[in-house]
Amino acid sequence: MERVEQHASFGGRQEVWKHHSRVLDCEMRFGIHLPAAALQGTRCPVLYWLSGLTCTEQNFITKAGAQAHAERHGVIVVAPDTSPRGAAVADDPAYDLGQGAGFYLNATQAPWSAHYAMQDYIAEELPALVEERFAASDRRGIFGHSMGGHGALVTALRHPGRYRSVSAFSPIVAPTRVPWGRKALAAYLGPESDAWKAWDAVELVRSASERLPLLVDQGANDEFLVPQLKPELLAEACRAVGHPLTLRLQPGYDHSYYFIASFLHDHFAHHAAALSP
Amino acid sequence: MERVEQHASFGGRQEVWKHHSRVLDCEMRFGIHLPAAALQGTRCPVLYWLSGLTCTEQNFITKAGAQAHAERHGVIVVAPDTSPRGAAVADDPAYDLGQGAGFYLNATQAPWSAHYAMQDYIAEELPALVEERFAASDRRGIFGHSMGGHGALVTALRHPGRYRSVSAFSPIVAPTRVPWGRKALAAYLGPESDAWKAWDAVELVRSASERLPLLVDQGANDEFLVPQLKPELLAEACRAVGHPLTLRLQPGYDHSYYFIASFLHDHFAHHAAALSP
Repeated sequence: MERVEQHASFGGRQEVWKHHSRVLDCEMRFGIHLPAAALQGTRCPVLYWLSGLTCTEQNFITKAGAQAHAERHGVIVVAPDTSPRGAAVADDPAYDLGQGAGFYLNATQAPWSAHYAMQDYIAEELPALVEERFAASDRRGIFGHSMGGHGALVTALRHPGRYRSVSAFSPIVAPTRVPWGRKALAAYLGPESDAWKAWDAVELVRSASERLPLLVDQGANDEFLVPQLKPELLAEACRAVGHPLTLRLQPGYDHSYYFIASFLHDHFAHHAAALSP
Repeated sequence: MERVEQHASFGGRQEVWKHHSRVLDCEMRFGIHLPAAALQGTRCPVLYWLSGLTCTEQNFITKAGAQAHAERHGVIVVAPDTSPRGAAVADDPAYDLGQGAGFYLNATQAPWSAHYAMQDYIAEELPALVEERFAASDRRGIFGHSMGGHGALVTALRHPGRYRSVSAFSPIVAPTRVPWGRKALAAYLGPESDAWKAWDAVELVRSASERLPLLVDQGANDEFLVPQLKPELLAEACRAVGHPLTLRLQPGYDHSYYFIASFLHDHFAHHAAALSP
């Protein structure tokens, strides 16, 4: 494990580390912001951010303005990459499959199954590493954007008790029913669509054993809203089973980091309330 | 003049425009954040941000987190490119000369003099355009980073009465005495170093007719601090003539946008106090 970047930031420190991932069998990078409290040795809760298609660990740490919020709340923020990486890792020329498009699931189909186990990386290997190597407590929250919003919702719903809070910006809530999701699920999991349901937030909400409140922000001018995101499907599923959901449609906002930055304050407040000891 | 990007941001709107610049004789892009008040037609003061070497209009608008501050203070923020651009514009393979390295001056030497008149663009053409086409008042502030910190200090000092406020992050305060500056000044202005002094903040402070207070933040771990930035030269010059300067050496901080973002709050407060009606 090697630190490849470190920058003082809002009284704390933004770092980037690379390490060999056992479950992905490749070298991975992740960003970690350590607030001043963590640098001084206080064990702080950890908020995991999952980015969207085409992103690396850099997008969120450079564009979202998260460090100011992390410092104010005394929260560590970890931003992993979006897929396994490297010349030995299967890839596809399209932006929405392969490297940069891991969809935070465990692939079962060749050639993807050799490295694409992002769910195990995000939910198990990475938190274990962070909690061992940094001043991190086991209080965890998870959030993300678009493909990463899907990742956050699905990861929290699949692991009752592991996360104290979850939220999403512009998430793909029903990958079994939209083009981005159907393409990825077919490639990574094969054509049998029954296997896909375990990676679809709308499906998982129906049988969730834990009623973790969901906060979702969605830009009303997001070009992907109608074809790919369909938050109304999540609203219907939550209403049907009584799962707590705050879904906010934000007039005028698009799919960009300008949208994320604008409402990150509220997401940090949502997580911090659940993560405080 | 054509809008090429627009994103809702913190209740206002981040836009990018392209236009033909008369003084640069090429197509230029600039970012402009319009706070909600400006979108509703209230004439707002304008804060000009000048970026550093290699940057375009994108760096500041995507990485600094300025929009939240702009909205809070009701200030328009304009972020131009750092040089003339295009295939017809002279360039150099080095990162610190030519396109991306205009140094905010008016070049007198061929081939640079055909397009490199960034000072006239920043101080005259661009403000006139902004004040004509947007809900902008003639209350102006200027700030920047590194080469752009030099640009902000020099532009304000060369134009008494034109700016109500000025500040800089990690500025090149004495380009006549450091490698980045000497290389650029020799190329753009020729070998006669007397002509260079009109573009050196330390020289300009000595004879400034207006005592505009300077706010300068500098990271103590900035790799360019000793060889290129030398803020102590500005401190000495200001002390000698009684020019008001707040120079803050920030322990642990480097030359990156993580540093800028961390202290932008204070710079906006500094400008807003001077820009309010």
